Amino acid sequence: MREEPWRDPARPAAERVADLVNRMTLREKLGQLYGVWLGQSSSDGEDDVAPFQHDLVDNDLNWPELIKNGLGQLTRPFGSAPVEPAAGAARLAALQGEIVSAGRFGIPAIAHEECLTGFMTHKATVYPIPLAWGATWSPSLAEEMAATIGAGMREVGVHQGLAPVLDVTRDVRWGRSEETIGEDPHLVATIGAAYVRGLRSAGILATLKHFIGYSASRGARNFGPVAIGPRELADVLLPPFLAGLRAGGESVMPSYADVDGVPPAANHALLTGLLRDRLGFEGTVVSDYFSLAFIELQHGLAANPGEAAGLALAAGVDVELPNVRCFGTPLLDAVLAGDVPESLVDAALTRVLRQKCDLGLLDPGWVSPQPSTVDFDPPESRALARRVAEESVVLLANDGVLPLRSGTKVALVGAQADTPSAMLGCYTFPQHVPSAGQGVAIPTLREAFEGEMTYAEGGEEAVAAAREADVCVVTLGDTAGLFGRGTSGEGTDATNLVIPGVELLDAVLATGTPVVLVLLTGKPYALGAYVGRCAAIVQAFFPGEEGGAAVAGVLSGRVNPSGRLPVSVPTDPYASPSPYLAPPLGRVNGASSVDPTPAFPFGYGLSYTSFEWSDFTGDGLSASVTVTNTGPVAGSEVVQLYLHDPVAQVVRPVVKLLGYAKVRLEPGESRTVTFDVPEEATAFTGLSGRRIVEPGDVELRIAASAVEVRQTFAATVSGPEREIGPSEERDVSVTVR
Amino acid sequence: MREEPWRDPARPAAERVADLVNRMTLREKLGQLYGVWLGQSSSDGEDDVAPFQHDLVDNDLNWPELIKNGLGQLTRPFGSAPVEPAAGAARLAALQGEIVSAGRFGIPAIAHEECLTGFMTHKATVYPIPLAWGATWSPSLAEEMAATIGAGMREVGVHQGLAPVLDVTRDVRWGRSEETIGEDPHLVATIGAAYVRGLRSAGILATLKHFIGYSASRGARNFGPVAIGPRELADVLLPPFLAGLRAGGESVMPSYADVDGVPPAANHALLTGLLRDRLGFEGTVVSDYFSLAFIELQHGLAANPGEAAGLALAAGVDVELPNVRCFGTPLLDAVLAGDVPESLVDAALTRVLRQKCDLGLLDPGWVSPQPSTVDFDPPESRALARRVAEESVVLLANDGVLPLRSGTKVALVGAQADTPSAMLGCYTFPQHVPSAGQGVAIPTLREAFEGEMTYAEGGEEAVAAAREADVCVVTLGDTAGLFGRGTSGEGTDATNLVIPGVELLDAVLATGTPVVLVLLTGKPYALGAYVGRCAAIVQAFFPGEEGGAAVAGVLSGRVNPSGRLPVSVPTDPYASPSPYLAPPLGRVNGASSVDPTPAFPFGYGLSYTSFEWSDFTGDGLSASVTVTNTGPVAGSEVVQLYLHDPVAQVVRPVVKLLGYAKVRLEPGESRTVTFDVPEEATAFTGLSGRRIVEPGDVELRIAASAVEVRQTFAATVSGPEREIGPSEERDVSVTVR
Repeated sequence: MREEPWRDPARPAAERVADLVNRMTLREKLGQLYGVWLGQSSSDGEDDVAPFQHDLVDNDLNWPELIKNGLGQLTRPFGSAPVEPAAGAARLAALQGEIVSAGRFGIPAIAHEECLTGFMTHKATVYPIPLAWGATWSPSLAEEMAATIGAGMREVGVHQGLAPVLDVTRDVRWGRSEETIGEDPHLVATIGAAYVRGLRSAGILATLKHFIGYSASRGARNFGPVAIGPRELADVLLPPFLAGLRAGGESVMPSYADVDGVPPAANHALLTGLLRDRLGFEGTVVSDYFSLAFIELQHGLAANPGEAAGLALAAGVDVELPNVRCFGTPLLDAVLAGDVPESLVDAALTRVLRQKCDLGLLDPGWVSPQPSTVDFDPPESRALARRVAEESVVLLANDGVLPLRSGTKVALVGAQADTPSAMLGCYTFPQHVPSAGQGVAIPTLREAFEGEMTYAEGGEEAVAAAREADVCVVTLGDTAGLFGRGTSGEGTDATNLVIPGVELLDAVLATGTPVVLVLLTGKPYALGAYVGRCAAIVQAFFPGEEGGAAVAGVLSGRVNPSGRLPVSVPTDPYASPSPYLAPPLGRVNGASSVDPTPAFPFGYGLSYTSFEWSDFTGDGLSASVTVTNTGPVAGSEVVQLYLHDPVAQVVRPVVKLLGYAKVRLEPGESRTVTFDVPEEATAFTGLSGRRIVEPGDVELRIAASAVEVRQTFAATVSGPEREIGPSEERDVSVTVR
Repeated sequence: MREEPWRDPARPAAERVADLVNRMTLREKLGQLYGVWLGQSSSDGEDDVAPFQHDLVDNDLNWPELIKNGLGQLTRPFGSAPVEPAAGAARLAALQGEIVSAGRFGIPAIAHEECLTGFMTHKATVYPIPLAWGATWSPSLAEEMAATIGAGMREVGVHQGLAPVLDVTRDVRWGRSEETIGEDPHLVATIGAAYVRGLRSAGILATLKHFIGYSASRGARNFGPVAIGPRELADVLLPPFLAGLRAGGESVMPSYADVDGVPPAANHALLTGLLRDRLGFEGTVVSDYFSLAFIELQHGLAANPGEAAGLALAAGVDVELPNVRCFGTPLLDAVLAGDVPESLVDAALTRVLRQKCDLGLLDPGWVSPQPSTVDFDPPESRALARRVAEESVVLLANDGVLPLRSGTKVALVGAQADTPSAMLGCYTFPQHVPSAGQGVAIPTLREAFEGEMTYAEGGEEAVAAAREADVCVVTLGDTAGLFGRGTSGEGTDATNLVIPGVELLDAVLATGTPVVLVLLTGKPYALGAYVGRCAAIVQAFFPGEEGGAAVAGVLSGRVNPSGRLPVSVPTDPYASPSPYLAPPLGRVNGASSVDPTPAFPFGYGLSYTSFEWSDFTGDGLSASVTVTNTGPVAGSEVVQLYLHDPVAQVVRPVVKLLGYAKVRLEPGESRTVTFDVPEEATAFTGLSGRRIVEPGDVELRIAASAVEVRQTFAATVSGPEREIGPSEERDVSVTVR
């Protein structure tokens, strides 16, 4: 056996893979193109598949029979029941051993796991949700977090993480908005790419999802059809995926929802024409759970699983997840019948095996790691989770009540202040498997509160406590859960943006006691009715296991808030969606009785110190500003650069973010932020349908948020008009001195 | 002069027009390419332009100077201040006389008026709104109505009507939903085309609007950008325009809102590539009011009015309305500077003059009609308005309380029951110019009520009246008005579908007295909370000047209701938009916590008689059913045919309407309805982006509404797959025997 070229690590990967492909039977080939999900059964009341998915779960899998042909992936081996970390690693190693032993070639499976807010398994650190990463405006922090998450996964034999979500928020009523990074393509691209780099640095394959359009579903309803034109898709939804690919993302997951009538998993133009041929992607395309079955059962593009398999394979899907329904026997039969060319199977197989080769899974002597002790939530991870949470808290309003002065008599009210799960988004293990308990310590705001206070959950008791207090901290927020079990999360969409439990806020406001409103949410809620009535408003997006401490730190002043909104906070609970990125006609004063102007704009956030912006200089397409901390405490300012393009061949958004820098400054300290804007950074999709750099006058706006413009620089993009390809896209370069 | 060919009615129109074009100076040419709006001033508090439009109105028009170069159009000469019909005709004739005298060629202007619900002028019949036409499911009635409207306009010298609105309802929160015919393309196409035929039969140019996308604006906000893919645009929004063109629509008005970044008035691919080159349109494209200014001022596609003019002209706009801002001096200068080729001017001019030629406006001796007496609201028109209203009322629920039995003690409550304007939509003269008064008699429901009753407007008095009564008729509804002056209309968009004034309904329901809910609205409101609690629900869409009598007739039983819903009635006030036409994945049970299932589906409506559906027969792509009136009174049933396409190359809606027949039956009478479905009627936009007939199995569903399927026939579309051009589109043929 030793002489088979594919086993020889000294040979080039392409040669090894080609050799291996040649040795495989058709059934063995297909064995590499799907995953299975062990232990997932429709009889489990707490399972994390939706009711409509129950029939699609493999309940009668014959494991020994299956693995004789090899196995492409193991779906969530640490999965949906609580397991001790070391025991999970051992179980995975045992499964891999069985797979290696059973097949003719002894190739282990790629083990994939969810890792949206950390490795989604029992006793692993729960980090803040992606909206909170967006609120940090700190790619470096996202990268460090992802590297730490990836290291933990790698330690126990996991190879692939089903993150990051690169969907740009389009309507925050969508329950999965909590999984998105924000509503600006550049913010999502920069933070998302940082996450990819972090995961990769740990040797974990990143999965860019959901390609493409999911966040723009009709009525913000999960799985709703997506109405979008090619320009908006290219200019708003695609840039984060370009960034994710540039950062080395190795896998792409197509979105569930059809875009203008074509489901992405069956869209050849998307997965092959755009992703592979135009963007040069060489990794694997893995299906979102059950989405190949949906091609037949929901989208109606196929009459049976074999046809669905053929469509998906031809479109460019390489691997069926989480189970085998289409790419097993149905695809086998379709190939044998001549309905699907085997060359398509070979192409997908080659990509899968190349990834396995790169991961070392084809090398002799491979074994899955089996550490004797594993700690998925060590102090360093908790500290990192704390930093991300602290940097993500956004102070929206403050009449001076914050930070709370010592001696202030504080009432803390609201169930969310004393509920650990109030810190957690939907894609966390404790929320997916509530019976497993927290697994990790999740101090609540009540427990983390720094200083004296009286706590009352709600009702009369809370009102009474507020009456007795100098300040009342009212804590409200979302409850995350799948498919309607709560107020935020996958399948848990909203029809309006009324703060859950807002009655408590109204009751406490009526007492006249100054109110600090703390929001722990998976989306922004409408605050129009409360601006000016609350003494302060603190917005945290599900801040994870250390979120209580982070919010407590902001209240006490131990933490100087530095988060900035990654999404607009609406004024009206019913006037969705946000007008950010909308063109001028879409928000003409008086043209509609519905005014979508937000209560707080994209990019907004306050600090406990003050910053002076000075020495604005502009030179062509460069602009700089000096920021000085003129206040009493250290703090961070986020300097933002927006593009305004007054005349163009197509309608442009009023502003879009071009670049930003989060600058930490000691009292009295100054730093100069310089933005150098390559002309390509002003590109957009022209009338031709292709991305162009259009000559003409533009405005560079240095700003503290999308609407707080501190200085505008007139600049000119030189001619002639020119098309740019994906490899010519350029970001603004930002230097801080 | 006699010898100039263009003046000779005996010569072919093309020759006359070409001759005339050759004789004109550039300034004279441009004079034919715009309208002016006399008497419209920004100082008028009641004017019907929005605040943001004020700067765009010509306040300093030099009329004598202007008309020396001729004038293309007169904008709403009967317009925005009340004028007696004969006096209006005289004034128009006088203006035309001045125009004819002033110019070198003596060519009168085309006079255009609004006619959405009748000639929108003082003392003219106010018909029901388009949603009500949709609810009649009677194209012949719409045609008769349009012919009558057109005759009145023609009688006083008006040439062009700015109707019909062919936008397909996409989100009923949009204030202009009242101007649409419904949410199904086939229903809109058939009723809309009938309206075009009617207007044409009177010699009035129909204006098909808004081309295209307006109804799909983001968040249902007026002027919001439109996100839509080319397939949805072609399969949902375009069919009514195709039907309107086939029916002979002579003018097309581009929509305001940008579609995927391109404003229709500057979209060459749309106005020339699609409309003229592919669809063969030979008429004129007239701009929506101020929309050429918007190309510069709102869309940002031009730096000045001359550039905006050049873009619009090149795209295919022929006439600027309502005023001259771009197509006057700015376009003159642009042509003189060589920025815009004069050939473009000539092309537009040729189309305009051809229309004038066909209208007889180039003929010697032309004078505008000047009748000595004019009655815009004669008894025949009122009777027609009554018939349309009666056929449009939809009975949504009835536990037997309706028709009201004589001797029943009835309380009638709600201000809408005693407010004439509650019958009228936004595009009616009394609503546009409230100070002018009603102009025509508009009996309220209270006045028209047949039999004894006690009326109370609201509050305690209404509750007390309800308590005393056997039945309480609660009348609620919209107040129409422009730009936020009310609850429905242009610029008056909604964020939710809570019935205005619903507190009265709640209060009356609490009395325990059986409630008949009467809705007089411009859109459907959410009824989920009231189904089963009201003894009956009667839905009328702004039913016009005879609406009171129509509703009263339904309550008394004089009228047997026969309307069917042209739009779904939602269950939840916040779960917009409707899922009608959505594909299966967009409404999977359990996939989203937001369930958009309507309270009453598209096509739904009850009767006071009963119908038996029998003798279903299917033969290939034909299907028929015999309907028998098995009840005690004459009535009309609407037999509907839907297509379900289980497997296709792209995602299809669960059902779409293919054909329908409204059948009036005496007690005991039977009729047989047969649908013959040409294969082309199953066409859709395939993966290629072109309309195709795809071979395969389909289902023909004979149904009483989109969900009440009475019989399903399996049928097969024969192969091979084939593309069809616009001229090959075919409707179902329906025969009633």
